[in-house]
Amino acid sequence: MIEPIANHRSIRKYKDTPVAPALLDEILAAGTRASTIGNMQLYSLVVSTSAEMRAALAPCHFNQPMVTQAPVVITCCADIHRFGQWCRQRGAEPQYDNFAWFVSAAIDTLMAAENIALEAEAHGLGICVLGTTIYTADRIVEVLGLPKGVIPVTTLVAGYPAEQPPLTDRLPLAAVVHSETYHDYTPEEIDTLWAAREASDETRELLRVNDLPNLARIFTERRYTAADNLAFSRKYFDVLKAQGFFNQ
Amino acid sequence: MIEPIANHRSIRKYKDTPVAPALLDEILAAGTRASTIGNMQLYSLVVSTSAEMRAALAPCHFNQPMVTQAPVVITCCADIHRFGQWCRQRGAEPQYDNFAWFVSAAIDTLMAAENIALEAEAHGLGICVLGTTIYTADRIVEVLGLPKGVIPVTTLVAGYPAEQPPLTDRLPLAAVVHSETYHDYTPEEIDTLWAAREASDETRELLRVNDLPNLARIFTERRYTAADNLAFSRKYFDVLKAQGFFNQ
Repeated sequence: MIEPIANHRSIRKYKDTPVAPALLDEILAAGTRASTIGNMQLYSLVVSTSAEMRAALAPCHFNQPMVTQAPVVITCCADIHRFGQWCRQRGAEPQYDNFAWFVSAAIDTLMAAENIALEAEAHGLGICVLGTTIYTADRIVEVLGLPKGVIPVTTLVAGYPAEQPPLTDRLPLAAVVHSETYHDYTPEEIDTLWAAREASDETRELLRVNDLPNLARIFTERRYTAADNLAFSRKYFDVLKAQGFFNQ
Repeated sequence: MIEPIANHRSIRKYKDTPVAPALLDEILAAGTRASTIGNMQLYSLVVSTSAEMRAALAPCHFNQPMVTQAPVVITCCADIHRFGQWCRQRGAEPQYDNFAWFVSAAIDTLMAAENIALEAEAHGLGICVLGTTIYTADRIVEVLGLPKGVIPVTTLVAGYPAEQPPLTDRLPLAAVVHSETYHDYTPEEIDTLWAAREASDETRELLRVNDLPNLARIFTERRYTAADNLAFSRKYFDVLKAQGFFNQ
């Protein structure tokens, strides 16, 4: 397996060693080699390395310490603005301001982001993907000055790791792979697929700390509650409309 | 640069050599090593290798020959169904049936997909990403039997290449990278960023064949028309609702 793929773990503690600009450029260039729909490159990468900008972004990521600790924060944005501006300058009328192009641009963005993550790891850096990006997209738009036609989709922090956590466990491959068509799960299959994770020491410790009877309830009652899910959902959809991706 | 990243090109012609099942499993396993929000793995990979299923999927991709020619078609789906079923079996009430979780699950899906693409290429296979997936998601749902909570986001075809096209040109790195905050483009910058592509032999040939005065109008008048964009947009959003990702 490609070494950075096999050894990927999310890094949450970083040394303060900066990333050399030439290396950072090579890592970002790896992003541009990813597949992109129609070769339109409908994404932008906002690379924040100054202490001021990382501090300004930190609250957008619930003040997780790695945002200010890691020397590089890359906000990966779906971007129909640049392509649209080029079209208009050429007398062509783009109509990309709709949901299909949000999804297409997000596909471009995320394939580029994964290349960047792997290339960073190939050079000895660690990365972490910040799922908080979509929860506070309205604030990120302001902090980074994103114009209409640009919306943040995910964020990578990168830097030299100050920890080496174990590989994260995953469900068995059979949990996510379906042969020919979708194979729906029997209750017994669900039990089997989650058995190892539910029996792990890590889960036992989580149950103790959270005082809950099973792992699923930690997800639904502590980590991702219904109220949060709905609030974040409506907010991100509002940002999508405000940034001009839903004129349909 | 990681070799499969540096040498990636979309392959549209394939040998009929099958991909060995053990190799295919290793490639799919690479997908599961990608970052996934909260380690929930909110995606499913429907792997179609039979001639029948690839023929059934071909119209969903506008009958591009590679769908039946390539021995492996992987429909990469955002999936909140499996995780939700696990939660409900444990007496936990998931509320993931909303837009935020569509986006989060799509992030998981696409990072896994990019790993799969690179791992396939590392083993000498070629791949192509099919942007058509979101245009015909309603049909794909039927063909693959996707339950509520599952929606196709992208598709990879994979197989041994029968062509070696040149690397695709990209805009200069400066086109997609912004330092600290978003740097909006002056008209002159847009001209400069696109200059090399607009002056290429490939573009000259496209203008001749399409009988249009510039490349931008090929995009807006031939490849991605306003009428198509809006129709696909509404359709994919309808599928999103029908599959239970918009109960907000």
